[in-house]
Amino acid sequence: MNLDALYSELQLKPSTKMALLVMDGVGDIATKATQYMTPLEAACTPNLDALCKNGAQGRMTPVAPGITPGSGPGHLALFGYDPIEFQVGRGVIEALGLGMDLRAGDVAARANFCTLDNKGIVTDRRAGRIPTQVCEELCDLLAKKIKKIDDCEVLIKAGKEHRFVVVFRGKGLEGPLTDADPHREGLSIPESKAVDPKSAKAKKTAKLVSAFYEQALPLLAGKNPANGFLMRGIAHQPEIPSFQDRYAMKAACIAVYPMYKGLAQLVGMNKLEGCQTISEQFERYLAEYNNYDFFFIHFKYTDKYGEDGNYEAKRKAVEEFDAALPIFMKKMPEVVAVTGDHSTPCPMKGHSWHPQPVLIVSPISGWDKLDRFTETGANHGSLGIFEAKYMLRLMQANARQFDKFGA
Amino acid sequence: MNLDALYSELQLKPSTKMALLVMDGVGDIATKATQYMTPLEAACTPNLDALCKNGAQGRMTPVAPGITPGSGPGHLALFGYDPIEFQVGRGVIEALGLGMDLRAGDVAARANFCTLDNKGIVTDRRAGRIPTQVCEELCDLLAKKIKKIDDCEVLIKAGKEHRFVVVFRGKGLEGPLTDADPHREGLSIPESKAVDPKSAKAKKTAKLVSAFYEQALPLLAGKNPANGFLMRGIAHQPEIPSFQDRYAMKAACIAVYPMYKGLAQLVGMNKLEGCQTISEQFERYLAEYNNYDFFFIHFKYTDKYGEDGNYEAKRKAVEEFDAALPIFMKKMPEVVAVTGDHSTPCPMKGHSWHPQPVLIVSPISGWDKLDRFTETGANHGSLGIFEAKYMLRLMQANARQFDKFGA
Repeated sequence: MNLDALYSELQLKPSTKMALLVMDGVGDIATKATQYMTPLEAACTPNLDALCKNGAQGRMTPVAPGITPGSGPGHLALFGYDPIEFQVGRGVIEALGLGMDLRAGDVAARANFCTLDNKGIVTDRRAGRIPTQVCEELCDLLAKKIKKIDDCEVLIKAGKEHRFVVVFRGKGLEGPLTDADPHREGLSIPESKAVDPKSAKAKKTAKLVSAFYEQALPLLAGKNPANGFLMRGIAHQPEIPSFQDRYAMKAACIAVYPMYKGLAQLVGMNKLEGCQTISEQFERYLAEYNNYDFFFIHFKYTDKYGEDGNYEAKRKAVEEFDAALPIFMKKMPEVVAVTGDHSTPCPMKGHSWHPQPVLIVSPISGWDKLDRFTETGANHGSLGIFEAKYMLRLMQANARQFDKFGA
Repeated sequence: MNLDALYSELQLKPSTKMALLVMDGVGDIATKATQYMTPLEAACTPNLDALCKNGAQGRMTPVAPGITPGSGPGHLALFGYDPIEFQVGRGVIEALGLGMDLRAGDVAARANFCTLDNKGIVTDRRAGRIPTQVCEELCDLLAKKIKKIDDCEVLIKAGKEHRFVVVFRGKGLEGPLTDADPHREGLSIPESKAVDPKSAKAKKTAKLVSAFYEQALPLLAGKNPANGFLMRGIAHQPEIPSFQDRYAMKAACIAVYPMYKGLAQLVGMNKLEGCQTISEQFERYLAEYNNYDFFFIHFKYTDKYGEDGNYEAKRKAVEEFDAALPIFMKKMPEVVAVTGDHSTPCPMKGHSWHPQPVLIVSPISGWDKLDRFTETGANHGSLGIFEAKYMLRLMQANARQFDKFGA
């Protein structure tokens, strides 16, 4: 029996509030040589300390042992979706990261400008990393000239430097397609094809991509060094059962960065816009407390400084989050989870597979006799090390949302 | 590959004795506000302390993260059966709880007397909670008048107040059926139907239920307020591979309460009757030591007082169990497991999903440097947190019952 089906079968009507507080990439590693304590351990966190005295701790494997997730799988797991079952293409993630308003069925591609010689051979895959402003001008040009192809809308949005995103919107489109990218210089741009040659929708989409190239390449002629472009990760936004349908909870996302708003929107959460700082996010939570059952509040900077390998800044980011917590704690929901979507260890300057610590607080969570919320402490918690996709189920259990299984 | 098949393939002939000591619902939670220590932590347990100095500890997820099991799934998992694969209907569990001797294929229903008006509308679903004695008289009446329907035996047994159980025994019966219960007052009793309309056996069973109603209702006419009855959870006792076939061990159950004897009987264990106290149960174990390979010894009171939310009584129940342990320890089997079938935290007054602590003791179990057997200690144990269905496999491994896998 499918476990999700069992959870659905046991689900009762909820009457509780929950909040998921994500310190992106908060997990880190201690190393004898370079950092004896993790940023979370070294930070001064009186408010998290207070919170954890009513909570249970553990660590979560984001996807599977040894697998490092991107933000997409990392967050889908936190939202209770199996990140292997619900895969989201890179084009879709990129589009969400640029704040594009995607719909189910939209096909999105990561694109970047490149340099072509007069025989159409790729001589620079990144067009000499043109300035962002040039990229924006070129995208404006393309967007203005190519609004539709047949009955499909074409949406183009510039990213940083040579990067942009193309979205095709219309009926009967489907990915994934093979990359229109030779992945090295010295070759011409290969034609994008349906990965599954039996899918008529994917074949239609591949034709659309070819037609887009036919119309776009002439517009870029002479725009050296950006006289061509490559497209990768071409796939449609999958149908994902909405958070509300799956858990019978009305959910709001309070995030600053477009990527996380986009991921929340993928599962049908409401985006509450306009916040710039974690204090503002928590204030917004207080203001909207009565309007939603579930709040996803996202804090970016722990990940950002982890990616920079900036230990001191990551530690301070934790302290900034902690200092703002009392605002949130003015209205404690019945269940709170504090965690990350993955670890971003400073010594690695990037995401990793190391299980992130998690703290679940509710009147019935139990307390593991731990006085702080840290990686080392969480190793001793009653939640053990478990797959991140089960965290939301544990939150539901703490909210008494499940009936007893069997007599 | 199915893991059970792999275990079977690797299984060697056993030559060891094992005992599974279940303190029902022993797991609990610590909370800063109400109970700093769990009952297991607060109890004085010199004998468990001694035992655990030769053992490995961990915690067990009874079914899946966040899922609270009834006694049925809780014990099936302890017996090494996947509680999601082997589901037992509520009627069957109820019948086992009343000590009825069920056989594979028997269809059992939970029933209760209700009040009907002269149009057959249910006006009280519990017939004013008639005294148990009235229920027994009415059940005797029904049992005397309806012994067989066609070629099927009908067995009726009274429970407490308005509750009773009906069992249909015959060839070619099968559940599950829909409830003959409107689940609220103001409606008539719906006809029970096969859940799977393609099952000829279930359709035959549904006819049997209708025929039972046709014969029984006239017998109750005028017996106000109990002039009708409702039936729920109508299903057959599933075929479960027997403990002996599965593990090549002859197993005995030494329990006091009918429910647990029934669950043991479901997997073909021998019931050793007549004990009333845990001391008597352990004495019986000593007396039967040479007659079985595996002993399941069930202690109820940790669960009972957890359900009552009676912390002090639960702590004392642990101490009562501990005080009797030296009797058991006169003949130590090669492998002992001490655990619960789930947690029953006092603050929740009911079963929960919190992983129960487990202690496995054998000459090769290893010792985790833990001096006591507690929830918090078990968080640090070498067994980690694992699904309860694997505990029996670990016991087998400790008894050297598995060959090496691969070369």
